[in-house]
Amino acid sequence: MKSRAAVAFAPGKPLEIVEIDVAPPKKGEVLVKISHTGVCHTDAFTLSGDDPEGLFPCVLGHEGAGVVVEVGEGVSSVRPGDHVIPLYTAECGECLFCRSGKTNLCVAVRATQGKGVMPDGSTRFSYNGEPIHHYMGCSTFSEYTVVAEVSLAKINPQADHGQVCLLGCGVTTGIGAVHNTAKVQEGDSVAVFGLGGIGLAVVQGARQAKAARIIAVDTNPAKFELARAMGATDCVNPKEHDQPIQQVIVAMTGWGVDHSFECIGNVDVMRAALECAHRGWGQSVIIGVAGAGQEISTRPFQLVTGRKWMGTAFGGVKGRSQLPGMVEQAMQGEIELAPFVTHTMGLERINEAFALMHEGKSIRSVIHY
Amino acid sequence: MKSRAAVAFAPGKPLEIVEIDVAPPKKGEVLVKISHTGVCHTDAFTLSGDDPEGLFPCVLGHEGAGVVVEVGEGVSSVRPGDHVIPLYTAECGECLFCRSGKTNLCVAVRATQGKGVMPDGSTRFSYNGEPIHHYMGCSTFSEYTVVAEVSLAKINPQADHGQVCLLGCGVTTGIGAVHNTAKVQEGDSVAVFGLGGIGLAVVQGARQAKAARIIAVDTNPAKFELARAMGATDCVNPKEHDQPIQQVIVAMTGWGVDHSFECIGNVDVMRAALECAHRGWGQSVIIGVAGAGQEISTRPFQLVTGRKWMGTAFGGVKGRSQLPGMVEQAMQGEIELAPFVTHTMGLERINEAFALMHEGKSIRSVIHY
Repeated sequence: MKSRAAVAFAPGKPLEIVEIDVAPPKKGEVLVKISHTGVCHTDAFTLSGDDPEGLFPCVLGHEGAGVVVEVGEGVSSVRPGDHVIPLYTAECGECLFCRSGKTNLCVAVRATQGKGVMPDGSTRFSYNGEPIHHYMGCSTFSEYTVVAEVSLAKINPQADHGQVCLLGCGVTTGIGAVHNTAKVQEGDSVAVFGLGGIGLAVVQGARQAKAARIIAVDTNPAKFELARAMGATDCVNPKEHDQPIQQVIVAMTGWGVDHSFECIGNVDVMRAALECAHRGWGQSVIIGVAGAGQEISTRPFQLVTGRKWMGTAFGGVKGRSQLPGMVEQAMQGEIELAPFVTHTMGLERINEAFALMHEGKSIRSVIHY
Repeated sequence: MKSRAAVAFAPGKPLEIVEIDVAPPKKGEVLVKISHTGVCHTDAFTLSGDDPEGLFPCVLGHEGAGVVVEVGEGVSSVRPGDHVIPLYTAECGECLFCRSGKTNLCVAVRATQGKGVMPDGSTRFSYNGEPIHHYMGCSTFSEYTVVAEVSLAKINPQADHGQVCLLGCGVTTGIGAVHNTAKVQEGDSVAVFGLGGIGLAVVQGARQAKAARIIAVDTNPAKFELARAMGATDCVNPKEHDQPIQQVIVAMTGWGVDHSFECIGNVDVMRAALECAHRGWGQSVIIGVAGAGQEISTRPFQLVTGRKWMGTAFGGVKGRSQLPGMVEQAMQGEIELAPFVTHTMGLERINEAFALMHEGKSIRSVIHY
C-alpha cells in the first residue's frame, strides 16, 4: 500500500515528504495507521549523521500513537481497530531479560531493530523500488508503519492520541526514571539537568513522588516558568554562576541531592550530575544519549564515598505491561501531558518541528497526519 | 609515656623503629595497647608519597587489635581491659550519615582525621619533642596509640588478635562489600579483580552469600590456589587472553556477571569490571583506592543499558555496631581468617612486610609487638 511519509534520505538533509510503499505485515507483525507522532532529540541525533548506528534512507520517528489496521500471521494480542503506542523497547515476556524482573531491556527484536529491519531481516518500506530502513522498531514518521507485535502497547481507545503519543518516549522515560530507576521517595531532594521534554517529565515524576526539593537546571531561563509550574522548587542557570554547577548544588543543599538526572546527553553534565549527588547515598541517573565515542569520567573517590552512577532506557518501563496504565494516569490528569505539547502541525511541516527543537523554542512538536 | 613505633619520617623511605612519646588521652579519647596489626596496601600507598593527603612524619597502620589502657574524660563505652579494634571509619551514631540508615560514612571525626590529628586539632605523638601525625584515626604501628572513642569497636575478649586484627580493614571491606554494598544473592554470578586480602575476602563473602559462580581474576596465578580454596569457581589470568578481560568474562557468562568487584585501585581495571557486568542489571563495586588525580571512564551506554557503578568504603560496615558480630563469626569459623595470614613477624621486621606485599608474596603480614 501507499503511505505518506517523511523520509530521511541522507544524513544532515531535511526530511522529504513522499509517498512510499508499505508491504503487508508478516508473521508476528502489525500494520498500524499512525495518527500522531512527537519529534524527539533522538530523531534529530540520527538525522544529523552523528549517530554511528544511523542508517539511510530511513523512516525516523519513535514517539507515536495509532490504530491497528491489519495483523500478520500468529498475532493474537492486538487486532484491527485497537489503539496502540509503538515501543522502541519491546516486551516479549519470554527472554532472559523480560523474565528477570530486573530490567525492561527485552532482547526479542533487539538485533534486527538495530539494523533497521524487521525480525526476519527485511524491510517493509520502499520508495521507487528501493528499500528504506525502519527506525527503532517504530518509524512513526510514516502514516502507515509495520511494527512487531511485541513492540506494541494496547491502550484505552478513548485516549487523546495527540497527547499520549508522548508516552511513547520522552514523558515515559522521565517519569519512569524517577519511579523505576532512582526510586525517589517522599521528602527526597532531586536535581534535574536539562529542561526539555524528558527533564520536565522528571520534574513531574519527582513531584508525584513527593520529593521535598526539585532543583531544575538549564542554561535557557525561558524553560524555568514551565519547570516551576510542573513542580520545580528551585531553578538554576549555570551561566549565572562562576563555580562549577555541581559545587553550586552542593552548596545549596549541604551535601548534595539524593537523586540527580542528566536529561541532555552531554558527558560533562553527566559528570556534574554525579558529583552533585549526596555523599554516602546520592545516585545519579543518565538519561540523555551522548554522541558517538564520548565517554563519562570522574574520580573513583566519588563512588567510594557512596555515590551510585546508573542509567535508564525508556525509564525502566515495560511497555506492554505498564504503558496502558500510564495512559490511564494521563487521562485522569495524574500525568499532565498538555504542557509538553508546545506546537502541533501537519506532516508537511515536520522540518519546522526539527528547527523549533534546535532553537530551544519547543518542548514537543506533535505531528498529525 | 614511651612507646615503640614504626615511624614514617618521609615519603618513600623505610619506616624507622624508634621510641616515641605518647600523650595521655584527652576528652573522648582512649589509649590502646596494640597487640597485633596487619600491613595493608593503603599504608604502602601513603608511605610511597603518591597519596596527596599523606602527611609526614606519621605513624601509619590502620588494621589492628588491642586492649584499652586508659580512657579520657567522658568516655563511657569502653574501659581499661576491654578488647578493641580501632576503626578508620568511625560510628558516632548521631551525625546525619549515621542517622540516615543508608551509609557507614560517619563524619564525626572525618575532618581532623584527614589532617592527621585528633578531634581537638592536636597530635598525641611526638619524637624528640617534634609532633608526629596520626593516620586514618588509628596509627596501629605504635604499640600505644590514642584513638577517638567513636573509632573503637569493642570485641569479644576471647578473640585471637593475631587474626581478628584483619577485620580492622581488608577482610571486613571485602566481605562487607558483598553483603552491604552489592547485596549478592544466592545463585548470583560474581567476578573479583585482584586477589589480595580484599579480593580474597570478596571471594569468601560471595561463597557465604551462595553465589553460583565466583570468577577470580589476577595476573599472578600463584594466587589461584588460595582463591579456589576460599570458593572461587573459575580463575582467570588476563595475561593468557588476547581479548580485553571484560570480553573474556562476558564470553564466559553469556551477558556478564551480576556483580563485579575491583580490589586493586587500577582505573583501567575499574572500567573492565564495570564493562563485564551483566546488561540490564549488573553492578560493579569499586573497592580499590586509585592514585591521586586518576579518573575512571566508560561510555555512558554502559550505564544506560542497565549497569550500575558504585563504590564502598570499609565494606559499608558500621564498625561499632557490626564489627563485634563479625569477630564472633570469625571465632565460629563462619569467616576464615587464618588463610589470610601468610606471614607473622615482630615490629622490628615491619619493612620486610612491605617488601613481601610489593613482591606479591604475602596476602597479609601480621605484626606483633
